[in-house]
Amino acid sequence: MESVRKLFTNDRFGAHNGIDLLEVSDGRAKLSMEIRDYHKNAYDTVHGGAIFTLADLAFAVAANSHGRVAVAINAHISFMKAATGGTLFAEAEVVSANPKIGAYTVRVTDDGGDLIAIFQGMAYRKRDSISASPE
Amino acid sequence: MESVRKLFTNDRFGAHNGIDLLEVSDGRAKLSMEIRDYHKNAYDTVHGGAIFTLADLAFAVAANSHGRVAVAINAHISFMKAATGGTLFAEAEVVSANPKIGAYTVRVTDDGGDLIAIFQGMAYRKRDSISASPE
Amino acid sequence: MESVRKLFTNDRFGAHNGIDLLEVSDGRAKLSMEIRDYHKNAYDTVHGGAIFTLADLAFAVAANSHGRVAVAINAHISFMKAATGGTLFAEAEVVSANPKIGAYTVRVTDDGGDLIAIFQGMAYRKRDSISASPE
Amino acid sequence: MESVRKLFTNDRFGAHNGIDLLEVSDGRAKLSMEIRDYHKNAYDTVHGGAIFTLADLAFAVAANSHGRVAVAINAHISFMKAATGGTLFAEAEVVSANPKIGAYTVRVTDDGGDLIAIFQGMAYRKRDSISASPE
Repeated sequence: MESVRKLFTNDRFGAHNGIDLLEVSDGRAKLSMEIRDYHKNAYDTVHGGAIFTLADLAFAVAANSHGRVAVAINAHISFMKAATGGTLFAEAEVVSANPKIGAYTVRVTDDGGDLIAIFQGMAYRKRDSISASPE
Repeated sequence: MESVRKLFTNDRFGAHNGIDLLEVSDGRAKLSMEIRDYHKNAYDTVHGGAIFTLADLAFAVAANSHGRVAVAINAHISFMKAATGGTLFAEAEVVSANPKIGAYTVRVTDDGGDLIAIFQGMAYRKRDSISASPE
Repeated sequence: MESVRKLFTNDRFGAHNGIDLLEVSDGRAKLSMEIRDYHKNAYDTVHGGAIFTLADLAFAVAANSHGRVAVAINAHISFMKAATGGTLFAEAEVVSANPKIGAYTVRVTDDGGDLIAIFQGMAYRKRDSISASPE
Repeated sequence: MESVRKLFTNDRFGAHNGIDLLEVSDGRAKLSMEIRDYHKNAYDTVHGGAIFTLADLAFAVAANSHGRVAVAINAHISFMKAATGGTLFAEAEVVSANPKIGAYTVRVTDDGGDLIAIFQGMAYRKRDSISASPE
């Protein structure tokens, strides 16, 4: 899991947008994002891109937890409820994985436990092990 | 189009992530994002969340160009090629729109013209006109 | 639930493709499809369209179980494992629903319990009650 | 293209549902489906599963036109307008393809030219050439 944590630490877009890693285990990850003003759109709700980024990073951590470099092929997100503040949480879990392709589901909830978004992502596994990734 | 431009100007997440509005017309929008270090993931390529945010904002501008408040219901993004630098462009266009629901396609390209991602989004139109949105 | 059952009975495409309704309750439905030769593609596996149809019909039954006419806006399906025979099952459940829009997840499994596909669908609810639908 | 045509001919689910192949060329395909009563749902419109099947088969033909076995990983479909009769057409074209993964867009229109659905699919290419597929 150390290499995955380093992967997270080196993710500058996650850092730029205030995302924290809470937990990672085989095929699963939990991240959080404390909402600040810069996460908002013109309607004063959390931007879909911020919610996607949180979910996508949870997906990336879970997908890379298996120890091989996994890159996102595509993702689908459904927005259930507008988020306005507090902290958002993303919990990713593997749905199905073979040596080449894995599918992951991420649930984004607010701190009241309400479902904000559901994200489904597919990743393609490269031959490289994560240790080959940039430091 | 003035109200849509204001909508964009008030989008703090877009500003935080360096996104510029180039063009907007009825049902269409073109935006750009100059890649900086903070857009990168641990693999030194542009983060999927950054690409999604650019596409999502192009979608939002195009969807709101019709003059009624439109909120994203869901979105699907396929990543075609890793982006590493330069400027990315997102061009959104309406595919189909009725008074309640509209579908939009966004193509994200790099400055060599290569396709980086395809995004398909659906928006639900509220009864409010955009002038009712927060200033 | 009687009106939903009638809805299913009147679905000619489901009947044409050998789909059976096993259970329906508020926001949930379970259907089955016994695989026959006509469900196959040229690779002798079950056609993606057959799997989608089974999932889509489970989604429709679950979405209409709330008593108002619901029509599909869009759907996303990920294929996990090729199916070759036996009986496939689709279990749909509501993920989130407000008066206008509902999201549903459907899991398609084979008779060994393996996951064949995951389907995520969104439905838009009309004002009509189901009793207004064609007999 | 001969091997792709044979692939289509051997697709029993397409035949069972009245789908015809009109054209195929490198990375593109056009198919049609004359609407019959068995394509309908309980609302007397064409079933989403029938529309998906038409689109999916156009996608499969286009994806396999490159000469290597390609299997669908996932697909996203947005329903734009209810179809009630006549003939539906699906036109698939490759959006992006590398040796392992290809993305395709399919537009489904009715015989008045109206857009019925948009389909986006991803395929994974196996090492086998199509000639290795079942006869």
